[in-house]
Amino acid sequence: MQISQKQKDQQREQVQQWFRKLRDRLCRSFEDIEQSLQSSKIAAYNADEPPGCFQRKLWQREDDSSEKGAGGGGEISLMRGRVFEKIGVNISTVHGAFVPELQSEVKGAAKDGRFWASGISLVAHPRSPLVPAAHFNTRYIESEYAWFGGGGDITPTATDEEASKIFHKAFQSVCDKYEPQRYRKYAKACDDYFYIRHRKRPRGAGGIFFDYLNDDWQRDFQFTREVGEAFLRVFPRIVRERCYQEWSEEQRQQQLRVRGYYTEFNLLYDRGTRFGLLTGGNNDAVLMSLPPLAAW
Amino acid sequence: MQISQKQKDQQREQVQQWFRKLRDRLCRSFEDIEQSLQSSKIAAYNADEPPGCFQRKLWQREDDSSEKGAGGGGEISLMRGRVFEKIGVNISTVHGAFVPELQSEVKGAAKDGRFWASGISLVAHPRSPLVPAAHFNTRYIESEYAWFGGGGDITPTATDEEASKIFHKAFQSVCDKYEPQRYRKYAKACDDYFYIRHRKRPRGAGGIFFDYLNDDWQRDFQFTREVGEAFLRVFPRIVRERCYQEWSEEQRQQQLRVRGYYTEFNLLYDRGTRFGLLTGGNNDAVLMSLPPLAAW
Repeated sequence: MQISQKQKDQQREQVQQWFRKLRDRLCRSFEDIEQSLQSSKIAAYNADEPPGCFQRKLWQREDDSSEKGAGGGGEISLMRGRVFEKIGVNISTVHGAFVPELQSEVKGAAKDGRFWASGISLVAHPRSPLVPAAHFNTRYIESEYAWFGGGGDITPTATDEEASKIFHKAFQSVCDKYEPQRYRKYAKACDDYFYIRHRKRPRGAGGIFFDYLNDDWQRDFQFTREVGEAFLRVFPRIVRERCYQEWSEEQRQQQLRVRGYYTEFNLLYDRGTRFGLLTGGNNDAVLMSLPPLAAW
Repeated sequence: MQISQKQKDQQREQVQQWFRKLRDRLCRSFEDIEQSLQSSKIAAYNADEPPGCFQRKLWQREDDSSEKGAGGGGEISLMRGRVFEKIGVNISTVHGAFVPELQSEVKGAAKDGRFWASGISLVAHPRSPLVPAAHFNTRYIESEYAWFGGGGDITPTATDEEASKIFHKAFQSVCDKYEPQRYRKYAKACDDYFYIRHRKRPRGAGGIFFDYLNDDWQRDFQFTREVGEAFLRVFPRIVRERCYQEWSEEQRQQQLRVRGYYTEFNLLYDRGTRFGLLTGGNNDAVLMSLPPLAAW
Protein backbone atom coordinates (compact mmCIF):
# COMPACT_ATOMS: atom_id res chain seq x y z
CA MET A 1 0.00 0.00 0.00
CA GLN A 2 1.42 3.37 -1.02
CA ILE A 3 1.38 6.10 1.61
CA SER A 4 2.08 9.78 1.19
CA GLN A 5 5.40 11.39 2.08
CA LYS A 6 3.58 13.35 4.76
CA GLN A 7 2.31 10.16 6.39
CA LYS A 8 5.80 8.69 6.12
CA ASP A 9 7.30 11.70 7.86
CA GLN A 10 4.72 11.43 10.62
CA GLN A 11 5.52 7.77 11.12
CA ARG A 12 9.23 8.49 11.27
CA GLU A 13 8.60 11.23 13.80
CA GLN A 14 6.45 8.95 15.94
CA VAL A 15 8.98 6.12 16.11
CA GLN A 16 11.85 8.47 16.90
CA GLN A 17 9.87 10.08 19.70
CA TRP A 18 8.97 6.70 21.09
CA PHE A 19 12.56 5.43 21.11
CA ARG A 20 13.72 8.63 22.82
CA LYS A 21 11.02 8.49 25.48
CA LEU A 22 11.68 4.81 26.12
CA ARG A 23 15.41 5.59 26.47
CA ASP A 24 14.60 8.21 29.11
CA ARG A 25 12.39 5.82 31.05
CA LEU A 26 14.91 2.97 30.88
CA CYS A 27 17.77 5.21 32.04
CA ARG A 28 15.69 6.57 34.91
CA SER A 29 14.75 3.09 36.01
CA PHE A 30 18.39 1.91 36.04
CA GLU A 31 19.62 5.04 37.78
CA ASP A 32 16.97 4.51 40.47
CA ILE A 33 18.31 1.01 41.13
CA GLU A 34 21.88 2.27 41.09
CA GLN A 35 21.22 5.11 43.49
CA SER A 36 19.02 3.28 45.93
CA LEU A 37 21.53 0.44 46.44
CA GLN A 38 22.55 0.14 50.07
CA SER A 39 25.98 -1.15 49.27
CA SER A 40 27.01 -1.55 52.91
CA LYS A 41 24.42 -4.33 53.20
CA ILE A 42 26.44 -6.65 51.05
CA ALA A 43 30.16 -7.36 51.30
CA ALA A 44 30.68 -8.03 47.61
CA TYR A 45 30.12 -4.35 46.70
CA ASN A 46 32.76 -1.77 47.42
CA ALA A 47 31.00 0.38 50.04
CA ASP A 48 33.19 3.38 49.21
CA GLU A 49 32.13 3.55 45.60
CA PRO A 50 29.60 6.26 44.76
CA PRO A 51 26.52 5.41 42.66
CA GLY A 52 26.95 5.74 38.91
CA CYS A 53 24.88 7.95 36.66
CA PHE A 54 24.38 7.99 32.91
CA GLN A 55 26.75 10.11 30.84
CA ARG A 56 25.38 11.18 27.47
CA LYS A 57 27.37 11.57 24.28
CA LEU A 58 26.08 12.66 20.89
CA TRP A 59 27.64 11.29 17.74
CA GLN A 60 27.23 12.16 14.08
CA ARG A 61 27.43 9.66 11.28
CA GLU A 62 30.66 10.42 9.47
CA ASP A 63 30.14 11.89 6.03
CA ASP A 64 31.36 9.30 3.59
CA SER A 65 31.68 10.79 0.13
CA SER A 66 31.16 7.37 -1.44
CA GLU A 67 27.64 7.38 -0.05
CA LYS A 68 25.18 9.92 -1.36
CA GLY A 69 22.98 11.62 1.22
CA ALA A 70 24.36 9.70 4.18
CA GLY A 71 23.83 11.26 7.55
CA GLY A 72 22.22 11.21 10.91
CA GLY A 73 23.64 10.18 14.23
CA GLY A 74 22.76 9.14 17.70
CA GLU A 75 23.10 9.52 21.40
CA ILE A 76 24.88 7.10 23.72
CA SER A 77 23.95 6.98 27.41
CA LEU A 78 26.57 5.09 29.36
CA MET A 79 26.69 4.34 33.09
CA ARG A 80 29.53 2.64 34.97
CA GLY A 81 28.29 2.08 38.48
CA ARG A 82 27.92 -0.34 41.36
CA VAL A 83 24.95 -2.54 40.45
CA PHE A 84 25.66 -1.89 36.77
CA GLU A 85 29.33 -2.38 36.13
CA LYS A 86 28.55 -1.13 32.63
CA ILE A 87 25.24 -0.33 30.97
CA GLY A 88 24.72 1.46 27.68
CA VAL A 89 21.57 2.68 26.00
CA ASN A 90 21.92 4.02 22.49
CA ILE A 91 19.34 5.71 20.29
CA SER A 92 20.12 6.57 16.71
CA THR A 93 18.53 7.70 13.48
CA VAL A 94 20.60 7.29 10.35
CA HIS A 95 20.00 7.32 6.63
CA GLY A 96 22.07 6.58 3.55
CA ALA A 97 22.61 3.70 1.15
CA PHE A 98 23.35 0.10 1.99
CA VAL A 99 26.83 -0.97 0.92
CA PRO A 100 26.65 -3.16 -2.22
CA GLU A 101 27.49 -6.37 -0.30
CA LEU A 102 24.48 -5.77 1.91
CA GLN A 103 22.02 -4.75 -0.78
CA SER A 104 21.28 -8.31 -1.76
CA GLU A 105 20.96 -9.39 1.87
CA VAL A 106 18.54 -6.78 3.11
CA LYS A 107 14.90 -6.94 2.09
CA GLY A 108 13.73 -4.13 -0.13
CA ALA A 109 17.21 -2.74 -0.57
CA ALA A 110 17.99 -4.24 -3.94
CA LYS A 111 16.68 -1.46 -6.15
CA ASP A 112 18.40 1.72 -5.07
CA GLY A 113 19.84 0.71 -1.71
CA ARG A 114 18.67 3.79 0.15
CA PHE A 115 17.47 3.40 3.72
CA TRP A 116 16.29 5.30 6.75
CA ALA A 117 16.62 3.64 10.14
CA SER A 118 15.88 4.55 13.72
CA GLY A 119 16.25 2.45 16.83
CA ILE A 120 17.16 1.92 20.42
CA SER A 121 19.58 -0.62 21.79
CA LEU A 122 20.64 -1.49 25.29
CA VAL A 123 23.24 -3.78 26.84
CA ALA A 124 23.54 -4.23 30.60
CA HIS A 125 26.51 -5.90 32.31
CA PRO A 126 25.67 -6.06 36.02
CA ARG A 127 28.54 -6.41 38.50
CA SER A 128 26.97 -9.32 40.33
CA PRO A 129 27.34 -12.70 38.61
CA LEU A 130 23.90 -13.50 40.07
CA VAL A 131 22.24 -10.78 37.99
CA PRO A 132 21.98 -11.79 34.31
CA ALA A 133 23.40 -9.55 31.60
CA ALA A 134 20.70 -8.25 29.26
CA HIS A 135 20.35 -7.05 25.71
CA PHE A 136 17.35 -5.26 24.24
CA ASN A 137 16.79 -3.46 20.97
CA THR A 138 14.00 -2.34 18.71
CA ARG A 139 14.28 -0.59 15.38
CA TYR A 140 12.30 0.67 12.43
CA ILE A 141 13.84 0.49 8.97
CA GLU A 142 12.56 1.94 5.72
CA SER A 143 13.95 1.07 2.33
CA GLU A 144 11.56 0.20 -0.48
CA TYR A 145 10.04 -1.96 2.21
CA ALA A 146 9.47 -0.79 5.79
CA TRP A 147 9.59 -2.94 8.88
CA PHE A 148 10.08 -3.23 12.62
CA GLY A 149 12.55 -5.54 14.29
CA GLY A 150 14.22 -6.18 17.60
CA GLY A 151 14.00 -8.26 20.71
CA GLY A 152 15.53 -8.90 24.07
CA ASP A 153 17.55 -11.67 25.68
CA ILE A 154 19.40 -12.35 28.91
CA THR A 155 22.69 -14.04 29.70
CA PRO A 156 22.91 -15.40 33.24
CA THR A 157 26.33 -16.59 34.46
CA ALA A 158 24.93 -19.92 35.59
CA THR A 159 21.52 -21.37 34.78
CA ASP A 160 18.86 -19.22 36.46
CA GLU A 161 15.55 -20.85 35.69
CA GLU A 162 13.51 -18.37 37.66
CA ALA A 163 14.95 -15.32 35.90
CA SER A 164 14.64 -16.99 32.50
CA LYS A 165 11.03 -17.90 33.19
CA ILE A 166 10.05 -14.39 34.29
CA PHE A 167 11.88 -12.84 31.35
CA HIS A 168 10.35 -15.12 28.73
CA LYS A 169 6.91 -14.80 30.25
CA ALA A 170 6.97 -11.02 30.00
CA PHE A 171 7.55 -11.23 26.25
CA GLN A 172 5.20 -14.14 25.76
CA SER A 173 2.30 -12.22 27.28
CA VAL A 174 2.88 -9.48 24.69
CA CYS A 175 3.28 -11.87 21.76
CA ASP A 176 0.16 -13.85 22.71
CA LYS A 177 -2.01 -10.77 22.24
CA TYR A 178 -0.99 -10.59 18.60
CA GLU A 179 -0.68 -14.10 17.24
CA PRO A 180 -0.94 -17.56 18.82
CA GLN A 181 2.40 -18.75 17.40
CA ARG A 182 4.28 -15.47 17.68
CA TYR A 183 6.10 -16.16 20.93
CA ARG A 184 7.22 -19.62 19.83
CA LYS A 185 8.45 -18.27 16.52
CA TYR A 186 10.31 -15.32 18.00
CA ALA A 187 11.80 -17.30 20.88
CA LYS A 188 13.14 -19.84 18.39
CA ALA A 189 14.57 -17.08 16.19
CA CYS A 190 16.33 -15.76 19.29
CA ASP A 191 17.81 -19.14 20.15
CA ASP A 192 18.92 -19.65 16.56
CA TYR A 193 20.55 -16.25 16.33
CA PHE A 194 22.31 -16.07 19.69
CA TYR A 195 24.16 -19.35 19.30
CA ILE A 196 27.95 -19.50 19.66
CA ARG A 197 28.73 -21.98 16.91
CA HIS A 198 32.36 -22.75 17.69
CA ARG A 199 31.54 -23.37 21.36
CA LYS A 200 28.35 -25.27 20.54
CA ARG A 201 26.52 -23.35 23.26
CA PRO A 202 23.87 -20.64 23.33
CA ARG A 203 24.98 -17.12 24.24
CA GLY A 204 22.49 -17.08 27.09
CA ALA A 205 18.98 -18.03 28.14
CA GLY A 206 17.28 -16.50 25.11
CA GLY A 207 14.25 -14.27 24.90
CA ILE A 208 12.65 -13.11 21.65
CA PHE A 209 14.00 -11.86 18.35
CA PHE A 210 11.92 -10.56 15.44
CA ASP A 211 12.68 -8.94 12.11
CA TYR A 212 10.95 -7.75 8.94
CA LEU A 213 7.67 -7.28 10.80
CA ASN A 214 5.32 -5.47 8.43
CA ASP A 215 1.76 -6.68 8.77
CA ASP A 216 0.05 -3.41 9.59
CA TRP A 217 2.02 -0.31 10.50
CA GLN A 218 -0.03 0.81 13.51
CA ARG A 219 -0.28 -2.68 14.92
CA ASP A 220 3.41 -3.44 14.33
CA PHE A 221 4.42 -0.18 15.97
CA GLN A 222 2.19 -0.98 18.93
CA PHE A 223 3.74 -4.43 19.23
CA THR A 224 7.22 -2.89 19.14
CA ARG A 225 6.21 -0.45 21.90
CA GLU A 226 4.79 -3.26 24.00
CA VAL A 227 8.02 -5.24 23.64
CA GLY A 228 9.84 -2.20 25.01
CA GLU A 229 7.37 -1.85 27.88
CA ALA A 230 7.77 -5.53 28.70
CA PHE A 231 11.54 -5.20 28.91
CA LEU A 232 11.20 -2.08 31.06
CA ARG A 233 8.89 -3.97 33.40
CA VAL A 234 10.77 -7.23 33.66
CA PHE A 235 14.49 -6.60 33.59
CA PRO A 236 14.72 -3.98 36.37
CA ARG A 237 12.60 -6.33 38.45
CA ILE A 238 15.08 -9.18 37.90
CA VAL A 239 17.94 -6.87 38.84
CA ARG A 240 16.24 -5.62 42.03
CA GLU A 241 15.46 -9.15 43.14
CA ARG A 242 19.05 -10.35 42.71
CA CYS A 243 21.37 -7.46 43.48
CA TYR A 244 21.42 -8.07 47.26
CA GLN A 245 22.51 -11.69 47.01
CA GLU A 246 26.10 -12.32 48.11
CA TRP A 247 28.32 -13.86 45.48
CA SER A 248 31.60 -15.75 45.62
CA GLU A 249 34.90 -15.03 43.86
CA GLU A 250 34.39 -18.28 41.98
CA GLN A 251 31.05 -17.05 40.63
CA ARG A 252 32.70 -13.79 39.63
CA GLN A 253 35.41 -15.68 37.71
CA GLN A 254 32.76 -17.73 35.97
CA GLN A 255 30.96 -14.51 35.02
CA LEU A 256 34.17 -13.16 33.44
CA ARG A 257 34.50 -16.32 31.36
CA VAL A 258 30.86 -16.14 30.24
CA ARG A 259 31.55 -12.53 29.26
CA GLY A 260 34.45 -13.85 27.18
CA TYR A 261 32.01 -16.03 25.24
CA TYR A 262 29.71 -13.02 24.92
CA THR A 263 32.58 -11.02 23.40
CA GLU A 264 33.36 -13.85 20.99
CA PHE A 265 29.75 -13.95 19.84
CA ASN A 266 29.51 -10.22 19.33
CA LEU A 267 32.77 -9.86 17.40
CA LEU A 268 32.58 -13.08 15.39
CA TYR A 269 28.88 -13.47 14.64
CA ASP A 270 26.73 -10.48 15.55
CA ARG A 271 25.57 -8.83 12.34
CA GLY A 272 25.09 -5.39 13.89
CA THR A 273 28.54 -5.36 15.47
CA ARG A 274 30.45 -6.60 12.46
CA PHE A 275 28.44 -4.50 10.04
CA GLY A 276 28.84 -1.42 12.22
CA LEU A 277 32.57 -1.76 12.68
CA LEU A 278 33.46 -2.83 9.18
CA THR A 279 31.46 -0.06 7.51
CA GLY A 280 32.72 2.84 9.59
CA GLY A 281 29.88 3.06 12.11
CA ASN A 282 30.42 4.80 15.43
CA ASN A 283 32.85 2.67 17.44
CA ASP A 284 31.57 3.84 20.83
CA ALA A 285 27.98 3.05 19.91
CA VAL A 286 28.78 -0.33 18.38
CA LEU A 287 31.21 -1.46 21.08
CA MET A 288 28.94 -0.32 23.92
CA SER A 289 27.89 -3.98 24.00
CA LEU A 290 31.31 -5.29 25.02
CA PRO A 291 31.70 -6.21 28.69
CA PRO A 292 33.58 -3.97 31.14
CA LEU A 293 35.87 -6.89 31.96
CA ALA A 294 36.18 -10.35 30.43
CA ALA A 295 38.52 -13.27 30.94
CA TRP A 296 39.95 -16.06 28.82
CA MET B 1 61.18 -28.55 -9.32
CA GLN B 2 59.69 -31.96 -8.62
CA ILE B 3 61.01 -33.79 -5.61
CA SER B 4 60.45 -37.38 -4.59
CA GLN B 5 57.92 -38.44 -1.99
CA LYS B 6 60.82 -39.63 0.13
CA GLN B 7 62.44 -36.20 0.06
CA LYS B 8 59.09 -34.66 0.87
CA ASP B 9 58.67 -36.94 3.86
CA GLN B 10 62.14 -36.04 5.07
CA GLN B 11 61.38 -32.33 4.78
CA ARG B 12 58.13 -32.76 6.69
CA GLU B 13 59.94 -34.65 9.39
CA GLN B 14 62.63 -32.00 9.65
CA VAL B 15 60.23 -29.07 10.05
CA GLN B 16 58.13 -30.92 12.61
CA GLN B 17 61.19 -31.78 14.64
CA TRP B 18 62.37 -28.18 14.49
CA PHE B 19 59.03 -26.77 15.64
CA ARG B 20 58.92 -29.24 18.53
CA LYS B 21 62.47 -28.50 19.65
CA LEU B 22 61.89 -24.74 19.39
CA ARG B 23 58.71 -25.17 21.47
CA ASP B 24 60.73 -26.94 24.17
CA ARG B 25 63.40 -24.25 24.22
CA LEU B 26 60.85 -21.42 24.31
CA CYS B 27 58.90 -23.01 27.15
CA ARG B 28 62.08 -23.62 29.15
CA SER B 29 63.17 -20.03 28.67
CA PHE B 30 59.82 -18.65 29.89
CA GLU B 31 59.64 -21.08 32.81
CA ASP B 32 63.13 -19.94 33.85
CA ILE B 33 61.97 -16.32 33.97
CA GLU B 34 58.80 -17.30 35.80
CA GLN B 35 60.61 -19.38 38.40
CA SER B 36 63.50 -17.04 39.05
CA LEU B 37 61.25 -14.03 39.72
CA GLN B 38 61.84 -12.62 43.19
CA SER B 39 58.31 -11.38 43.56
CA SER B 40 58.88 -9.87 47.00
CA LYS B 41 61.17 -7.30 45.34
CA ILE B 42 58.28 -5.58 43.67
CA ALA B 43 54.98 -4.59 45.23
CA ALA B 44 52.92 -5.01 42.10
CA TYR B 45 53.27 -8.82 42.16
CA ASN B 46 51.36 -10.89 44.63
CA ALA B 47 54.20 -12.30 46.78
CA ASP B 48 52.05 -15.26 47.86
CA GLU B 49 51.51 -16.54 44.37
CA PRO B 50 53.61 -19.56 43.36
CA PRO B 51 55.47 -19.56 40.01
CA GLY B 52 53.52 -20.91 37.05
CA CYS B 53 54.61 -23.82 34.90
CA PHE B 54 53.47 -24.98 31.50
CA GLN B 55 50.61 -27.45 31.33
CA ARG B 56 50.49 -29.55 28.17
CA LYS B 57 47.38 -30.72 26.38
CA LEU B 58 47.19 -32.82 23.25
CA TRP B 59 44.37 -32.33 20.79
CA GLN B 60 43.27 -34.26 17.74
CA ARG B 61 41.73 -32.69 14.67
CA GLU B 62 38.10 -33.76 14.69
CA ASP B 63 37.21 -36.19 11.96
CA ASP B 64 34.92 -34.35 9.62
CA SER B 65 33.26 -36.78 7.24
CA SER B 66 32.84 -34.01 4.66
CA GLU B 67 36.61 -33.81 4.38
CA LYS B 68 38.48 -36.79 2.94
CA GLY B 69 41.67 -37.76 4.73
CA ALA B 70 41.53 -34.97 7.28
CA GLY B 71 43.55 -35.52 10.41
CA GLY B 72 46.41 -34.60 12.62
CA GLY B 73 46.44 -32.55 15.77
CA GLY B 74 48.64 -30.61 18.07
CA GLU B 75 49.89 -29.88 21.52
CA ILE B 76 49.10 -26.78 23.55
CA SER B 77 51.47 -25.64 26.29
CA LEU B 78 49.81 -23.10 28.53
CA MET B 79 51.20 -21.30 31.56
CA ARG B 80 49.33 -18.96 33.89
CA GLY B 81 51.89 -17.46 36.21
CA ARG B 82 53.28 -14.34 37.81
CA VAL B 83 55.42 -12.71 35.14
CA PHE B 84 53.29 -14.35 32.48
CA GLU B 85 49.66 -13.83 33.32
CA LYS B 86 48.98 -16.10 30.35
CA ILE B 87 51.32 -17.55 27.75
CA GLY B 88 50.54 -20.25 25.25
CA VAL B 89 52.75 -22.12 22.83
CA ASN B 90 51.05 -24.39 20.35
CA ILE B 91 52.58 -26.82 17.86
CA SER B 92 50.43 -28.62 15.36
CA THR B 93 50.59 -30.75 12.26
CA VAL B 94 47.38 -31.13 10.31
CA HIS B 95 46.33 -32.27 6.89
CA GLY B 96 43.13 -32.34 4.89
CA ALA B 97 41.44 -30.26 2.23
CA PHE B 98 40.86 -26.53 2.23
CA VAL B 99 37.20 -25.60 2.46
CA PRO B 100 35.91 -24.44 -0.95
CA GLU B 101 35.74 -20.76 0.12
CA LEU B 102 39.44 -20.87 0.91
CA GLN B 103 40.60 -22.77 -2.13
CA SER B 104 40.63 -19.69 -4.32
CA GLU B 105 42.37 -17.66 -1.62
CA VAL B 106 45.26 -19.95 -0.83
CA LYS B 107 48.10 -20.34 -3.29
CA GLY B 108 48.40 -23.74 -4.88
CA ALA B 109 45.16 -24.96 -3.38
CA ALA B 110 42.93 -24.46 -6.39
CA LYS B 111 43.38 -27.84 -8.02
CA ASP B 112 42.53 -30.47 -5.47
CA GLY B 113 42.58 -28.41 -2.29
CA ARG B 114 44.60 -30.89 -0.27
CA PHE B 115 47.16 -29.55 2.16
CA TRP B 116 49.63 -30.57 4.83
CA ALA B 117 50.66 -27.97 7.39
CA SER B 118 52.89 -27.86 10.42
CA GLY B 119 53.71 -24.91 12.64
CA ILE B 120 54.36 -23.31 15.96
CA SER B 121 52.55 -20.32 17.42
CA LEU B 122 53.03 -18.41 20.62
CA VAL B 123 51.15 -15.60 22.37
CA ALA B 124 52.44 -14.06 25.60
CA HIS B 125 50.36 -11.78 27.83
CA PRO B 126 52.67 -10.60 30.63
CA ARG B 127 51.13 -9.34 33.86
CA SER B 128 53.11 -6.13 33.93
CA PRO B 129 51.84 -3.38 31.62
CA LEU B 130 55.50 -2.42 31.19
CA VAL B 131 56.31 -5.74 29.50
CA PRO B 132 54.94 -5.86 25.92
CA ALA B 133 52.65 -8.68 24.85
CA ALA B 134 54.18 -10.79 22.09
CA HIS B 135 53.10 -13.00 19.25
CA PHE B 136 55.30 -15.32 17.23
CA ASN B 137 54.55 -18.03 14.72
CA THR B 138 56.20 -19.94 11.92
CA ARG B 139 54.67 -22.57 9.71
CA TYR B 140 55.31 -24.77 6.69
CA ILE B 141 52.46 -25.49 4.32
CA GLU B 142 52.34 -27.90 1.41
CA SER B 143 49.60 -27.95 -1.17
CA GLU B 144 50.52 -28.10 -4.84
CA TYR B 145 52.87 -25.37 -3.81
CA ALA B 146 55.00 -25.47 -0.63
CA TRP B 147 56.03 -22.51 1.44
CA PHE B 148 57.14 -21.13 4.77
CA GLY B 149 55.46 -18.25 6.58
CA GLY B 150 55.31 -16.59 9.95
CA GLY B 151 56.68 -13.71 11.92
CA GLY B 152 56.63 -12.01 15.27
CA ASP B 153 55.30 -8.76 16.68
CA ILE B 154 54.94 -7.06 20.05
CA THR B 155 52.18 -5.01 21.63
CA PRO B 156 53.38 -2.66 24.36
CA THR B 157 50.74 -0.95 26.50
CA ALA B 158 52.25 2.47 25.90
CA THR B 159 54.91 3.40 23.37
CA ASP B 160 58.17 1.66 24.30
CA GLU B 161 60.74 2.78 21.77
CA GLU B 162 63.57 0.84 23.31
CA ALA B 163 61.71 -2.48 23.31
CA SER B 164 60.46 -1.91 19.77
CA LYS B 165 63.96 -1.07 18.57
CA ILE B 166 65.54 -4.16 20.13
CA PHE B 167 62.74 -6.38 18.83
CA HIS B 168 62.87 -5.07 15.27
CA LYS B 169 66.66 -5.15 15.22
CA ALA B 170 66.74 -8.82 16.14
CA PHE B 171 64.63 -9.68 13.10
CA GLN B 172 66.36 -7.20 10.85
CA SER B 173 69.76 -8.77 11.48
CA VAL B 174 68.32 -12.10 10.31
CA CYS B 175 66.57 -10.65 7.26
CA ASP B 176 69.64 -8.69 6.19
CA LYS B 177 71.62 -11.89 5.79
CA TYR B 178 69.19 -13.06 3.15
CA GLU B 179 68.10 -10.08 1.07
CA PRO B 180 68.77 -6.35 1.33
CA GLN B 181 65.06 -5.40 1.17
CA ARG B 182 63.71 -8.33 3.13
CA TYR B 183 63.37 -6.60 6.49
CA ARG B 184 61.67 -3.54 5.00
CA LYS B 185 59.25 -5.71 3.07
CA TYR B 186 58.39 -8.00 5.99
CA ALA B 187 58.12 -5.15 8.51
CA LYS B 188 55.69 -3.38 6.19
CA ALA B 189 53.67 -6.56 5.70
CA CYS B 190 53.46 -6.81 9.50
CA ASP B 191 52.25 -3.22 9.88
CA ASP B 192 49.71 -3.70 7.10
CA TYR B 193 48.37 -6.92 8.57
CA PHE B 194 48.20 -6.00 12.25
CA TYR B 195 46.14 -2.87 11.74
CA ILE B 196 42.86 -2.36 13.59
CA ARG B 197 40.83 -0.74 10.85
CA HIS B 198 37.82 0.44 12.83
CA ARG B 199 40.06 2.06 15.45
CA LYS B 200 42.47 3.43 12.86
CA ARG B 201 45.38 2.25 14.98
CA PRO B 202 48.01 -0.47 14.70
CA ARG B 203 47.62 -3.49 16.99
CA GLY B 204 51.07 -2.88 18.41
CA ALA B 205 54.62 -1.89 17.55
CA GLY B 206 54.98 -4.34 14.66
CA GLY B 207 57.79 -6.73 13.87
CA ILE B 208 57.96 -8.90 10.75
CA PHE B 209 55.42 -10.96 8.83
CA PHE B 210 56.17 -13.18 5.84
CA ASP B 211 54.19 -15.65 3.78
CA TYR B 212 54.51 -17.81 0.68
CA LEU B 213 58.29 -17.95 1.04
CA ASN B 214 59.54 -20.51 -1.47
CA ASP B 215 62.82 -19.49 -3.03
CA ASP B 216 64.94 -22.46 -2.08
CA TRP B 217 63.74 -25.04 0.42
CA GLN B 218 66.94 -25.37 2.47
CA ARG B 219 67.53 -21.63 2.56
CA ASP B 220 63.88 -20.86 3.39
CA PHE B 221 63.87 -23.42 6.18
CA GLN B 222 67.09 -21.93 7.53
CA PHE B 223 65.58 -18.44 7.44
CA THR B 224 62.51 -19.73 9.28
CA ARG B 225 64.72 -21.31 11.92
CA GLU B 226 66.71 -18.12 12.32
CA VAL B 227 63.50 -16.13 12.80
CA GLY B 228 62.64 -18.51 15.62
CA GLU B 229 66.11 -18.18 17.15
CA ALA B 230 65.84 -14.39 16.94
CA PHE B 231 62.52 -14.39 18.82
CA LEU B 232 63.96 -16.78 21.42
CA ARG B 233 66.91 -14.45 21.92
CA VAL B 234 65.10 -11.12 21.99
CA PHE B 235 61.73 -11.51 23.68
CA PRO B 236 62.88 -13.21 26.92
CA ARG B 237 65.52 -10.46 27.15
CA ILE B 238 62.85 -7.75 26.87
CA VAL B 239 60.81 -9.51 29.56
CA ARG B 240 63.78 -9.87 31.93
CA GLU B 241 64.71 -6.22 31.54
CA ARG B 242 61.21 -4.98 32.34
CA CYS B 243 59.64 -7.36 34.81
CA TYR B 244 61.14 -5.68 37.91
CA GLN B 245 59.81 -2.20 37.09
CA GLU B 246 56.99 -1.06 39.38
CA TRP B 247 53.76 -0.22 37.59
CA SER B 248 50.73 1.82 38.55
CA GLU B 249 47.06 0.85 38.64
CA GLU B 250 46.51 3.39 35.86
CA GLN B 251 49.04 1.59 33.64
CA ARG B 252 47.33 -1.70 34.44
CA GLN B 253 43.94 -0.28 33.39
CA GLN B 254 45.48 1.01 30.17
CA GLN B 255 46.91 -2.47 29.54
CA LEU B 256 43.44 -4.01 29.92
CA ARG B 257 42.06 -1.56 27.36
CA VAL B 258 44.89 -2.31 24.90
CA ARG B 259 44.09 -6.00 25.40
CA GLY B 260 40.51 -5.14 24.45
CA TYR B 261 41.76 -3.78 21.12
CA TYR B 262 43.89 -6.92 20.75
CA THR B 263 40.79 -9.07 21.24
CA GLU B 264 38.89 -7.02 18.68
CA PHE B 265 41.66 -7.50 16.14
CA ASN B 266 41.91 -11.23 16.68
CA LEU B 267 38.17 -11.92 16.51
CA LEU B 268 37.30 -9.44 13.76
CA TYR B 269 40.29 -9.53 11.44
CA ASP B 270 42.82 -12.26 12.18
CA ARG B 271 42.63 -14.86 9.43
CA GLY B 272 43.94 -17.69 11.57
CA THR B 273 41.49 -17.05 14.38
CA ARG B 274 38.41 -16.60 12.21
CA PHE B 275 39.36 -19.47 9.93
CA GLY B 276 40.12 -21.73 12.86
CA LEU B 277 36.89 -21.02 14.72
CA LEU B 278 34.55 -20.97 11.76
CA THR B 279 35.86 -24.23 10.31
CA GLY B 280 35.78 -26.30 13.46
CA GLY B 281 39.41 -25.98 14.51
CA ASN B 282 40.43 -26.65 18.08
CA ASN B 283 38.94 -23.86 20.23
CA ASP B 284 41.60 -24.06 22.91
CA ALA B 285 44.42 -23.81 20.40
CA VAL B 286 42.82 -20.98 18.44
CA LEU B 287 41.70 -18.97 21.45
CA MET B 288 45.01 -19.37 23.26
CA SER B 289 45.76 -15.91 21.83
CA LEU B 290 43.00 -14.15 23.76
CA PRO B 291 44.13 -12.18 26.81
CA PRO B 292 43.62 -13.49 30.36
CA LEU B 293 41.69 -10.31 31.19
CA ALA B 294 40.54 -7.42 29.00
CA ALA B 295 38.45 -4.33 29.57
CA TRP B 296 36.08 -2.20 27.54
